[in-house]
Amino acid sequence: MVKNAFFKLFLKELKDLYSAEQQLIVALPKMVDAASTPELKEAFQNHFEETQNQVVRLEDAFVTLKEEPTGETCKAMQGLIKEGEEVIKSKLPSIVKDAALIGAAQRVEHYEIAGYGVAKTFAKLLDFDEIADLLDATLDEEKTADENLTSIAEGGLFTAGVNKRASEM
Amino acid sequence: MVKNAFFKLFLKELKDLYSAEQQLIVALPKMVDAASTPELKEAFQNHFEETQNQVVRLEDAFVTLKEEPTGETCKAMQGLIKEGEEVIKSKLPSIVKDAALIGAAQRVEHYEIAGYGVAKTFAKLLDFDEIADLLDATLDEEKTADENLTSIAEGGLFTAGVNKRASEM
Repeated sequence: MVKNAFFKLFLKELKDLYSAEQQLIVALPKMVDAASTPELKEAFQNHFEETQNQVVRLEDAFVTLKEEPTGETCKAMQGLIKEGEEVIKSKLPSIVKDAALIGAAQRVEHYEIAGYGVAKTFAKLLDFDEIADLLDATLDEEKTADENLTSIAEGGLFTAGVNKRASEM
Repeated sequence: MVKNAFFKLFLKELKDLYSAEQQLIVALPKMVDAASTPELKEAFQNHFEETQNQVVRLEDAFVTLKEEPTGETCKAMQGLIKEGEEVIKSKLPSIVKDAALIGAAQRVEHYEIAGYGVAKTFAKLLDFDEIADLLDATLDEEKTADENLTSIAEGGLFTAGVNKRASEM
């Protein structure tokens, strides 16, 4: 395996994602507790379970690469989680807090969509096809989680979403 | 104008975006300097100019709302920019650094896509249609900037992209 500068960059991207997911595993249960709309609580709980599986996928990738997953701290995720914690601690009416939690969570999802998108492209170029597939599976989950949050925010044809209910408070 | 809790949340989202854009205005010229691929340099320069206009749009929104744009620091953007600065300072071969810069910049674009998406939805619900249109114009620019970075990374039918060239270093 040629460990050139691009390989090292790929490894750095994977470690960044690993650090981001580790931070999320601590943060998501607090989001579950802070949410009051049942669908939102459930969405955060489901995503917590998905995130645990995403960590395992990254660990599998590190095993394939014979590398350690540690050594990077994802500073962007630290900032994203600080913003989420501010929402959790805020004294907003519960439905408005739910709208704010969705906003914070969608920023997190988009961070991950960008990060996994980049890492998957790098994996393909380096001919790590199995790792690219693992990253792609997570990327799909992140996109679905983001779309699911949009649905909960916007509501359906017969049900008002969180945003609409929050705006009428 | 009813300034309920949801309105205050909307204002907080706008201030977060304003802080994020202000930070980007400082950071983007450093990205221009650090990039070596001409298309990437140009993309960052164009996005710097767009960002200045996006700040003006936000200021217009604050005038409409009769509110001050200050009072929030976007902590997520602080983290994103720290990550970008690490790339700028790194001793990577220039084409690999370009690939890393694209990765950092796409994370920024996605942060903004999520943020403007949320703020636009809130503006519509609060019947600030003109502000929603301003936010939508910026949202389109952020999406286009992200797609443009993907094109530069991936290349075209007859030209190798930054990632391919970086992987062959």
